[in-house]
Amino acid sequence: MKHFLSVQDAPDVDTIIQEALAYKQSPRKDGGLGEGKTMGLLFLNPSLRTRISTQIAARNLGMETIVFNVDKEGWQLEFHDGAIMNGSTVEHVKEAAAVIGQYVQVLGIRTFPGLVNREDDYSELYIRQFVKYAGVPVVSLESATVHPLQSLADAVTIRECWKENRKPRVVMTWAPHVKALPQAVPNSFAQWMNAWGAVDFVIAHPKGYELHPDFAGKATVVHNQNEALKGADFVYVKNWSSYQQYGKIVSQDSSWMMTAQKLTQTRQAKVMHCLPVRRNLVIADEVLDGPQSVVIQEAGNRVWAAQAVLSRILREL
Amino acid sequence: MKHFLSVQDAPDVDTIIQEALAYKQSPRKDGGLGEGKTMGLLFLNPSLRTRISTQIAARNLGMETIVFNVDKEGWQLEFHDGAIMNGSTVEHVKEAAAVIGQYVQVLGIRTFPGLVNREDDYSELYIRQFVKYAGVPVVSLESATVHPLQSLADAVTIRECWKENRKPRVVMTWAPHVKALPQAVPNSFAQWMNAWGAVDFVIAHPKGYELHPDFAGKATVVHNQNEALKGADFVYVKNWSSYQQYGKIVSQDSSWMMTAQKLTQTRQAKVMHCLPVRRNLVIADEVLDGPQSVVIQEAGNRVWAAQAVLSRILREL
Amino acid sequence: MKHFLSVQDAPDVDTIIQEALAYKQSPRKDGGLGEGKTMGLLFLNPSLRTRISTQIAARNLGMETIVFNVDKEGWQLEFHDGAIMNGSTVEHVKEAAAVIGQYVQVLGIRTFPGLVNREDDYSELYIRQFVKYAGVPVVSLESATVHPLQSLADAVTIRECWKENRKPRVVMTWAPHVKALPQAVPNSFAQWMNAWGAVDFVIAHPKGYELHPDFAGKATVVHNQNEALKGADFVYVKNWSSYQQYGKIVSQDSSWMMTAQKLTQTRQAKVMHCLPVRRNLVIADEVLDGPQSVVIQEAGNRVWAAQAVLSRILREL
Repeated sequence: MKHFLSVQDAPDVDTIIQEALAYKQSPRKDGGLGEGKTMGLLFLNPSLRTRISTQIAARNLGMETIVFNVDKEGWQLEFHDGAIMNGSTVEHVKEAAAVIGQYVQVLGIRTFPGLVNREDDYSELYIRQFVKYAGVPVVSLESATVHPLQSLADAVTIRECWKENRKPRVVMTWAPHVKALPQAVPNSFAQWMNAWGAVDFVIAHPKGYELHPDFAGKATVVHNQNEALKGADFVYVKNWSSYQQYGKIVSQDSSWMMTAQKLTQTRQAKVMHCLPVRRNLVIADEVLDGPQSVVIQEAGNRVWAAQAVLSRILREL
Repeated sequence: MKHFLSVQDAPDVDTIIQEALAYKQSPRKDGGLGEGKTMGLLFLNPSLRTRISTQIAARNLGMETIVFNVDKEGWQLEFHDGAIMNGSTVEHVKEAAAVIGQYVQVLGIRTFPGLVNREDDYSELYIRQFVKYAGVPVVSLESATVHPLQSLADAVTIRECWKENRKPRVVMTWAPHVKALPQAVPNSFAQWMNAWGAVDFVIAHPKGYELHPDFAGKATVVHNQNEALKGADFVYVKNWSSYQQYGKIVSQDSSWMMTAQKLTQTRQAKVMHCLPVRRNLVIADEVLDGPQSVVIQEAGNRVWAAQAVLSRILREL
Repeated sequence: MKHFLSVQDAPDVDTIIQEALAYKQSPRKDGGLGEGKTMGLLFLNPSLRTRISTQIAARNLGMETIVFNVDKEGWQLEFHDGAIMNGSTVEHVKEAAAVIGQYVQVLGIRTFPGLVNREDDYSELYIRQFVKYAGVPVVSLESATVHPLQSLADAVTIRECWKENRKPRVVMTWAPHVKALPQAVPNSFAQWMNAWGAVDFVIAHPKGYELHPDFAGKATVVHNQNEALKGADFVYVKNWSSYQQYGKIVSQDSSWMMTAQKLTQTRQAKVMHCLPVRRNLVIADEVLDGPQSVVIQEAGNRVWAAQAVLSRILREL
């Protein structure tokens, strides 16, 4: 693996899930793989889970990490070619990326979409420039349109929880929120479920929240949440803002919050969320505190997903 | 030791002092105890001494650390049960604590009191919820009402400095300040001195600054600083805000600042302070720059106090 | 080497350049030199290159690092002797430095000039107090008037690029900028070039930007950029504010921006800059993206400069 920016960089999804689970069984089995190497972790936006889980994964492989919170440490980057830099940006990504590439052997980056200019966001302007100029492998720690380490951890969690000899029905449902959030997590989850092929995948959301067809792909899309939930084995709850009316909140319909009552329609579905989750707005307390929630296990699996990806990158360095 | 939240979690005070001093003699003697383990250090408030000394202590035991400045990295946590999270908090402590507990083997946390709601603060609302939900041992890096790693370092310093064959007279005296400060340090120092029993302990403060009786305990309390200082072997200087008129500054009496003149009443007492200290407001330059000050030695002992605590926790993991 | 604050702390410049280049060849050859030791990295101002390159250098020598961003972590230090600290500063450098000196074996510090009080800045008030009170070796990560780790990396880069059997002509030229910047980088580069003696050194700037004579030294100073560039083998581009009208911008003359056209007057000079660089204000895109730019190589050499310095300090600990 050269870079890890989306499911397209992964091998067969089942294979990498198995690699992640093998690390969960034996975290230090490749403890010397990254010896003498350093991974830079660049955050253009803050992170808790992603930062800590990636740091742990790197160390399990014997690799050091250095964190740089670009936003908090006062370093405003320029991303536009030909810019006359007489404003607020202090360094162009051409230099920033190339310099960091001099210091580290692997570079992890988190960027967020502006949610204003759809073309900029969906061209992955920011992370693609890091790939172009860093000269070392780049791992997405979430970018404008996808969050592949999260999606891999999600797939690992489904694999762990599923013991039956049939395809599980996996329903990803929109839920309300007070802020306009990126489409990265739902785009990415859809992309991985479609690529995996080991599940029956359904997307439920109010009209106006259609995902870009490249991500929704062949999924069944319904606008009635109850219909979607019937017979579900996994319910992935997530808010996102509109792709069509780009970055806008076109509904805050509170009836889409996930509740225990709604779950009665499922086959005792496991409930998933990437976290952080706003309680009693996105998912009710009773669900998160109940036996069907696997959100903590899912967050724990972030380590093994990152470790599977990093080990593949280290082997090809 | 499962958790370390106050003196009540420590073994006999003399025993843990000796363990700390043994690490001071030989910092790396248990260098493999924490191998392959990680301690998370979560700061809801900033820290210099506590962070660095705990990181050094952890590394002396072979344990890695990961720091997360919750306040600076933009992660506002919700602590109230049943909250409808449609405001500024982005994650509930139930998830934040449980997730971090998936990643690290020991969790250190610093929380501060709000100094507004006394019941909330004295119930230790914040740190107790981390204990409840993290699922791993929790070490207080200062909480709303106590600062046990500081107090252990204080006791270690007194033990190091005291060679005579009688109980030293230890006087903790209030001093003026421009801000309303927590009672955590004086509460905790009083609690440890009382539990230790190896000193004659006196508390001096203007009326209105009485500590909660659970912490003041059996200490002699006087309102005349000069009377308290007579014959003192150790003088512990510290400002705190009122417990009765909760969080308020009820006096800024500058005559309580510690000066060389005042120290002439003592038996060449050693002067202690937890730092940071505002010079010429809390303690005069002449004292801090003079031979009776042990504040730097005291700060240095923070490492050995933390190491004694972490080694006990690691042995029981 | 006890401290590293300027070229005066270095051995013969050629010697330390060779030591840096030896580490570039073999980064881990002294991998056990810093074992069990920790370097504190204190930033009173933000840093990307300096922090990461120094962390990598320390680790290559087996030394751990702990970073403390004083400015971002909310710790305002007092530097004035005798101050009555009833304002915004929370800790005096006397305590801060001495305490950190209890925890780490080597202390790296970045301070910036205020650009208001020239005497304060040029007395190196801040870093000298750390040296006075820390009790451990101090490494400048850039101070008010010099940036010696940068200058050593610059000299290493010139040595690497220069194969001819004559002294290269090295021209440091002022360039325009929108902000008032310190003189630390040009001061320091001039100081090292003068001390090195292996180059013919020229400084070019508009009138009013004369450097302090202690730094400019015996360099040839010209006010006509084209004249300076004729026959140049290396062009070091950098903005700085005025020393005479202290901290002021006395010209923003855009004709001093470095362009491909101007470089035609040189002997295919290599172009250097300490970074970050504002494109199309200080240096044109065509130059930075062209074959004569060595700015990325120069930034990469920061690691080996730091490693040469740290290894000398560790050997004398």
